[in-house]
Amino acid sequence: MKLKNKLLGILVLLTPFSQVFSQTDSLNIRNIFDESLMNGEAYGNLRELCKDIGPRLSGSANAEKAVVWSEEKMKSYGFDKVWLEKVMVPHWVRGKSEVCRIVSDEKSLDVLALGFSVDTDGKISGEVVEFQTLQALKSAPDGSLEGKIAFLNQPMNSKLIDTFSAYGGCAGGRVAGPSEAAKKGAVAFVMRSVGLRADDFPHTGVMAHEAGVDSIPSFALSTNSAYYLAQSLEKNPKLKLELESHCKLYPDVESYNVVAEITGSEFPNKVITVGGHLDSWDVGEGAHDDGAGVIQALEILRIFKNLGMKPRHSIRCVFFMNEENGSRGGQAYADNCREREDQHVAAMESDRGGFTPRGFHIDGSENDIEYLRDWLPLLEPYNIHIMKKGYGGVDINYLRDTGVSLIGVVPDSQRYFDLHHTANDVFENVNKRELELGAASMASLIYLIDKYGMPQKLKN
Amino acid sequence: MKLKNKLLGILVLLTPFSQVFSQTDSLNIRNIFDESLMNGEAYGNLRELCKDIGPRLSGSANAEKAVVWSEEKMKSYGFDKVWLEKVMVPHWVRGKSEVCRIVSDEKSLDVLALGFSVDTDGKISGEVVEFQTLQALKSAPDGSLEGKIAFLNQPMNSKLIDTFSAYGGCAGGRVAGPSEAAKKGAVAFVMRSVGLRADDFPHTGVMAHEAGVDSIPSFALSTNSAYYLAQSLEKNPKLKLELESHCKLYPDVESYNVVAEITGSEFPNKVITVGGHLDSWDVGEGAHDDGAGVIQALEILRIFKNLGMKPRHSIRCVFFMNEENGSRGGQAYADNCREREDQHVAAMESDRGGFTPRGFHIDGSENDIEYLRDWLPLLEPYNIHIMKKGYGGVDINYLRDTGVSLIGVVPDSQRYFDLHHTANDVFENVNKRELELGAASMASLIYLIDKYGMPQKLKN
Repeated sequence: MKLKNKLLGILVLLTPFSQVFSQTDSLNIRNIFDESLMNGEAYGNLRELCKDIGPRLSGSANAEKAVVWSEEKMKSYGFDKVWLEKVMVPHWVRGKSEVCRIVSDEKSLDVLALGFSVDTDGKISGEVVEFQTLQALKSAPDGSLEGKIAFLNQPMNSKLIDTFSAYGGCAGGRVAGPSEAAKKGAVAFVMRSVGLRADDFPHTGVMAHEAGVDSIPSFALSTNSAYYLAQSLEKNPKLKLELESHCKLYPDVESYNVVAEITGSEFPNKVITVGGHLDSWDVGEGAHDDGAGVIQALEILRIFKNLGMKPRHSIRCVFFMNEENGSRGGQAYADNCREREDQHVAAMESDRGGFTPRGFHIDGSENDIEYLRDWLPLLEPYNIHIMKKGYGGVDINYLRDTGVSLIGVVPDSQRYFDLHHTANDVFENVNKRELELGAASMASLIYLIDKYGMPQKLKN
Repeated sequence: MKLKNKLLGILVLLTPFSQVFSQTDSLNIRNIFDESLMNGEAYGNLRELCKDIGPRLSGSANAEKAVVWSEEKMKSYGFDKVWLEKVMVPHWVRGKSEVCRIVSDEKSLDVLALGFSVDTDGKISGEVVEFQTLQALKSAPDGSLEGKIAFLNQPMNSKLIDTFSAYGGCAGGRVAGPSEAAKKGAVAFVMRSVGLRADDFPHTGVMAHEAGVDSIPSFALSTNSAYYLAQSLEKNPKLKLELESHCKLYPDVESYNVVAEITGSEFPNKVITVGGHLDSWDVGEGAHDDGAGVIQALEILRIFKNLGMKPRHSIRCVFFMNEENGSRGGQAYADNCREREDQHVAAMESDRGGFTPRGFHIDGSENDIEYLRDWLPLLEPYNIHIMKKGYGGVDINYLRDTGVSLIGVVPDSQRYFDLHHTANDVFENVNKRELELGAASMASLIYLIDKYGMPQKLKN
């Protein structure tokens, strides 16, 4: 035992880039958690965003209400700066509820059109050809889907512990599936929702129109409905599906990122950005995706201000617009940073739900990861245990060419894909403490980055 | 970097009690997780227990149905042995729903009698004296509560990251509060529920009658109702509360622990016990408390059997009866082990809900903890990161004098005290994957203990 401890002591001394932590750091992090758990405003703010506004798809009236609400809320906290950044966003509208029916037994299936899908222009129907993977669909003979409906029935891989990995294995089918089906002559595309649970909630999400390919109406079925359809096809391979949707794409409209800043006392031009996205899909309330993320980013600034912590660098909270169907906000913010000649220290994004925080994924150099990992002992009392290579986030990804580390907040992932892009992503499914612990863990890491800075860029 | 790696290598060689893990261990653990996530029966079994039977307080008809169901279920899996162990249990019945009303404004409060509470024998009413802590109640002057109702309004400490620590700070008030109030002359005891969330669900739980002290009716108010009462008292300190309950304690009845075993191929008399408790409170469905725990214990045996894993030691799954109000099952099982001269290798209990597993608490020697901690790298791919000193569990605690380590399963604790002992502890609030990951992590640790054994007892 003793020998091991001695060696560990030597290791600590030898660790490159290790910082000497003061007792102050432990106390300040404890204060951050106490502030979040005892005086936190994240939960109340999320309730307002979800219940007073609700879903807020880019281009919608609700999205604009959300912009106004966000700006007013930020101003009410008296941060050093609050501003809007203009961004032109797509304006896709679902219209009247979709219908999906098996003609033979008149069974209605639970369905949502995919984002950017075209409408059916009346009803369309056709026989159904089922595929288990996008690759199988791509490999179908040319013309083999003429007049038919392609059905991509790929379940998420339940074996994967990190559900985002399982999502990664399916989301491509949603994005590219419709155009691949159209290339083979299909008149419509339906897919099993990218969700883990057997339930009746279809999961919408963005699809893409490949240039030069016909746009066909595209839908997600709930996992239960996809199962029902597959069972029905086994019994009757010739069954016909009838589909109806009323989606429409309007010209782009003006919208905004909403930004608040506590300006750095030593380095006002050096910025730590932390954000999430303000827009959401048009079903549910965007509570976990990504109401939780923006509200946590806001809460970090509130915690700093309320505790009288004066950051050395500017800490900037960004509510990005249009992550869900265009990422125009992320692009615009990066462009504006370039124009302003902001120097970034680091960027952090919370867009994996307001669940119990487990740690952080770092899209950055091995040096940076090693450096950040040395802080884990300060966060372990709060059950933060992950600090490793990984993806930062869709919106901060546009800051990639600043060369700084992009930090993705990693909450427990087990429940996210029960709710993601569904009518079930509502405030009631957010746990107050989980949301607060997330905000506090983000604030704590930002406190450390602000205090100690990030390493000089070294060759790896 | 390289120097650090080299030193880490030396460390591994020098670590006392460290085992050499084979690639096989990683693969077997992967197989265990795959079996639980892909072919798991835990969720379906829990549905049966919750929906076909429901709440199952010791001594109730439902508890007996649960015993029958459990025995049949275990037999259906074809384990080597299945048996019942007789245990006499208390038979307390809530009777007709309780009533709690503020007389002046006729406001009804959400209330449940505490377990073992006596009834009000008609209605009782009285002025209310509020206390913030059990200690404050104990310090009240003698006779100061004559004819009055004591109100213990102690919130759980939200600062504590481990919610079980916060529970520990309040549960004593529930157990001892009624008798302390009676000593000061109170005619009844009401308390703020031991719950973290602001909601309308009262949390019941056991209270104790101190010998030689009058038994007074005892109640828990929902957190919202406790808040309402406290606010009302500020406005009108003389307000009267009216209470009505219909509880009754009947003579003890015969019940059973239900036990299944896969008998060890090398050491049939050496036992690894893993269990939870089959009884629950009489509200809700005992889904997390502790349906999840028993079903996970059962799932471990199913996984071993289905994967053709032949344990060296006997692995025994125990559904303990009467953890909630008496712990008679835990006592009886320990007594029976002593009589049978079972030699225990280790014991594990899951009684903290079926949430995402985080690790294990070890009530055992430093040697044992160090030894078990060496296995963490095998479990870290599954986000298991806790292996430290802590409490094992109420039922396996009776195995303490065997001298073996008592292992408490530690899931994420943030949501448990939203549901604990309430009508809201229902199947719908259990997440399938979280339940399955818990079962797999338990099975994995048991696999390692079975394969490598536990250390010889050494002096620390």
